[in-house]
Amino acid sequence: MDPTPDPTLDTRSDTAPISPRVKAQTDSTISPRRAALRRIAEANRTLIEDMVGTDVPPDDLERVATELEALAARFRHDRPRSIYEGMAETAMSGGDIEPFFDHSPLIGRANPLAPPIVIEHGPDLVTGRVTFGSVYEGPPGCVHGGFVAAAFDEVLGSAQTLSGSPGMTARLTVNYRSPTPLHSPLVIEGRFDRREGRKVFTSGRILADGKVTAEAEGLFVAIDVAKFRALAGSFNRRLADGA
Amino acid sequence: MDPTPDPTLDTRSDTAPISPRVKAQTDSTISPRRAALRRIAEANRTLIEDMVGTDVPPDDLERVATELEALAARFRHDRPRSIYEGMAETAMSGGDIEPFFDHSPLIGRANPLAPPIVIEHGPDLVTGRVTFGSVYEGPPGCVHGGFVAAAFDEVLGSAQTLSGSPGMTARLTVNYRSPTPLHSPLVIEGRFDRREGRKVFTSGRILADGKVTAEAEGLFVAIDVAKFRALAGSFNRRLADGA
Repeated sequence: MDPTPDPTLDTRSDTAPISPRVKAQTDSTISPRRAALRRIAEANRTLIEDMVGTDVPPDDLERVATELEALAARFRHDRPRSIYEGMAETAMSGGDIEPFFDHSPLIGRANPLAPPIVIEHGPDLVTGRVTFGSVYEGPPGCVHGGFVAAAFDEVLGSAQTLSGSPGMTARLTVNYRSPTPLHSPLVIEGRFDRREGRKVFTSGRILADGKVTAEAEGLFVAIDVAKFRALAGSFNRRLADGA
Repeated sequence: MDPTPDPTLDTRSDTAPISPRVKAQTDSTISPRRAALRRIAEANRTLIEDMVGTDVPPDDLERVATELEALAARFRHDRPRSIYEGMAETAMSGGDIEPFFDHSPLIGRANPLAPPIVIEHGPDLVTGRVTFGSVYEGPPGCVHGGFVAAAFDEVLGSAQTLSGSPGMTARLTVNYRSPTPLHSPLVIEGRFDRREGRKVFTSGRILADGKVTAEAEGLFVAIDVAKFRALAGSFNRRLADGA
């Protein structure tokens, strides 16, 4: 409960330090490329959500498929890419993780898979806000349990950076208390609890209309920037080898 | 280790019973509507994946956004829907869960959010096969930890149906052993371990090129079809009320 502050944290007020992670998600001075990618993701998110349970007839659906195939063809290329590419000026440079935060499959505004979760940082508490649409449905009217877990991984992963030693998930335990509703504003709390050497302990919960629907504990193990860069280097070599 | 077989399981051979869940995913005699929805999802999946790290210029990206917005407008409607709608002839009727299996955000072939994971059932082991693309990237070159957890929830959720008493996730614990690589065929094993009253215990692991990258335990609590229907009814009333 005595977190070593992340030295990269700015302090907008005494109670609300803002990390670069959060800035990356809310920054309004973004490049035309990023703005366009976010606009595409938002349009696609709407498309995907509004298609759920659609009554558009099959022939029209086939025409939509043809149009989407044509759109996809414009982006065809010959090898897998990384979200850390194409933004070399900022990616991986001294901990700037803008690519992750624009392209993350959970909080990335430029990733149509992401609802997206919107993250706010407090001194030892991170709050994620999200409303899951029908495309995330598991049991009727409820968020798929897998996305409940995924949301915790993201929010606890953000909370663990409050330790000052960001790392990767080592263990995640989710307790499902009651169904988490779709189309309902959810608050996901992630708390930095304590640090023991390289281990960072976090816990969290999801609230829907004030009711706890799920709780979680997350253990993270700190890795340094060099290891993170090595991971990226190894992947880039694998891509170059045509993996 | 003495599972009560799911009475709805067919037995294609002594070692490979096929549940309706799996049939729904692999059935080749599907309606034109389902076929079109799957084609749309596949086209969109390709679009989303190939856009990662794109070098298409911002002006062209803006044009793509405009086209996607026009496509989305064709599906606009005035209230949230459920994946269990629009297929009333099969949904919720005696445990037929085709909607879930076509539209699940993890295994649904008609859901562009799903990679999708392809599930095979054995007598006490379920195997999921999936290759995660760049759009699921967390750490460089690696599957986002949230999607590792989500994949386990799905595969263990399938494994627990081998108990004969399908239920909802009560607790999921994921241990991350090493980074799970992108663009690599993964095998996700889910095992039905034992049943104690309404509690169903499962465990699983993810293998990449024979190496275990993550392990998990899942506890499920059986719910009956009536409860499942009640959940659907409650949601439908909420939708009707304009939630």
